[in-house]
Amino acid sequence: MLYVIGLGLSDEKDITVKGLEAVTKCERVYLEAYTSILMVSKERLEDFYGKTVITATRETVELESDEILRDADQVDVAFLVVGDPLGATTHTDLLLRAQARGIKTETIHNASIMTALGSTGLQLYNFGQSISIPFYTDSWKPGSWYDRLEENLKFGMHTLVLLDIKVREQSEENFIKGKLIYEPPRFMNPATAIEQILYTEDERHPPPQLAKDENAPASPASSRASTPAPEDYPTYLPPANTLAMTLSRIGTPTQRIISGTLAELAEMSEEDFGGPLHSIVIVGKRIHPLELEFAGRFCVNGEQGNWWKVAKEVYGVQRETFDY
Amino acid sequence: MLYVIGLGLSDEKDITVKGLEAVTKCERVYLEAYTSILMVSKERLEDFYGKTVITATRETVELESDEILRDADQVDVAFLVVGDPLGATTHTDLLLRAQARGIKTETIHNASIMTALGSTGLQLYNFGQSISIPFYTDSWKPGSWYDRLEENLKFGMHTLVLLDIKVREQSEENFIKGKLIYEPPRFMNPATAIEQILYTEDERHPPPQLAKDENAPASPASSRASTPAPEDYPTYLPPANTLAMTLSRIGTPTQRIISGTLAELAEMSEEDFGGPLHSIVIVGKRIHPLELEFAGRFCVNGEQGNWWKVAKEVYGVQRETFDY
Repeated sequence: MLYVIGLGLSDEKDITVKGLEAVTKCERVYLEAYTSILMVSKERLEDFYGKTVITATRETVELESDEILRDADQVDVAFLVVGDPLGATTHTDLLLRAQARGIKTETIHNASIMTALGSTGLQLYNFGQSISIPFYTDSWKPGSWYDRLEENLKFGMHTLVLLDIKVREQSEENFIKGKLIYEPPRFMNPATAIEQILYTEDERHPPPQLAKDENAPASPASSRASTPAPEDYPTYLPPANTLAMTLSRIGTPTQRIISGTLAELAEMSEEDFGGPLHSIVIVGKRIHPLELEFAGRFCVNGEQGNWWKVAKEVYGVQRETFDY
Repeated sequence: MLYVIGLGLSDEKDITVKGLEAVTKCERVYLEAYTSILMVSKERLEDFYGKTVITATRETVELESDEILRDADQVDVAFLVVGDPLGATTHTDLLLRAQARGIKTETIHNASIMTALGSTGLQLYNFGQSISIPFYTDSWKPGSWYDRLEENLKFGMHTLVLLDIKVREQSEENFIKGKLIYEPPRFMNPATAIEQILYTEDERHPPPQLAKDENAPASPASSRASTPAPEDYPTYLPPANTLAMTLSRIGTPTQRIISGTLAELAEMSEEDFGGPLHSIVIVGKRIHPLELEFAGRFCVNGEQGNWWKVAKEVYGVQRETFDY
């Protein structure tokens, strides 16, 4: 049996009871270590499971899956994935390979950033498609993620932005020389992500072509009761008029959520956000007052910040008084 | 401390190790029993936790939250939610109430249908906003969910359709008489959901107004490499030309996924889908060949069905040969 087991978001105790029972009876235990990370070391997992854990790199999983699947029709093998195991294509691929070899498979689900982002107060059913932003280089600044974002904005949906992770990358020099020396892992910080978002925003909608003054509040959506027409929602991101949230280490004891306008968040430093993992949410125009209220509790400049002002003047959502 | 703890999708062992440790030290344990259900009884949870579990109805949570939060600044209280605890507004509301009373809160995340639907082979980041379909009655057939669906279809996104659950509903007669007698719980079956989807589809796009013959394959999306223009994606659901999937009891041992055209799925009976919980996915036009391949493994009429034909002729996605 191949068990594909989600580990959740923070530490060794985020595995489910069912997942833990499966791990402890497996002959070999692999840990997928390239799409995400836990906040604890592999050694801590090994102590907790009482098992040796084998790190599975991207190369192992994609090119040497035969080794992972070896004898799995006779013995139990565990493949551990941070978050929920079926969030990324690469793992459904492993399941297909197993099944093609007549190996039984069982998936044990767990929390993922895709549901844990409910901690922002934004409702999961209001999110559109998710996007991923890669590290830009001097010569490579792909903006294809922007197309997806534009589509979500068009209908007022929220957007989860996943930030790049670089694990076991070779430097260009080592790659050319064929040296298997890897750079230290890199995890994109919201400061970098927002810089890149505003860079691509600027490329797509350079200020001279802007229909409206970027700093002036746009007209509020006409009515909250009916669905505003798509034209009500600008499909670009004027920094002073766009609400966003940064999500750091969600589901861990040091979780930090910050909300504000993109312009406000752009003024923060890497240190403000702290260590990985991070993601970002671009708030859609169809935000509900209760979502606004909860998300506003995290706003960067408190009552003096622009969160409530932009919500009212640009998003057309009045702050309501909730009786707690 | 108020612990809001996700229970995952299937049975008592889907709680995380961290969640279980929290429950066992709590003085009072509430189980939210109106937005979802586990596949096991409350008694089985009680045996597993070694604790009495109090059922929290919608009325308890929304109107009597003071009782749930009583003394929670001094003792530990657990509020258990099937799936991930922050999927529904009602639970963020409880967190806000707790915080307004100076009560510390901790959320322990878990798997939710929103991530477990990766079991379909469809990629989570390709899903647009989720919709919920309520039970239609003779006089009440609200189609507002269709607006959201149309928006997703317009950009080729997949759509998760959550099906209605009725727990502790009174009959009209008992309601009028003020009798607190509740009907047996009802869980919408995909057979009913598809019937209702096609009913509203028909209302929105009655056959005479159809621009194209419903049974004729539409022109395939021009190119997979670039984003097809939105016009390439019809924003309605011709049953013979729309790919969909039913998801039954996801994350449980009797999980069943079926894929096919809406017309094929509409021919199936309630018994084909079995017991609750169920949901449905409407497949977006931007489906990737690897998603198509995985999802096609569940297709209702196998190679003789219309899955591959419609994928090719309507969705414009060629079946590729994957080397496993």
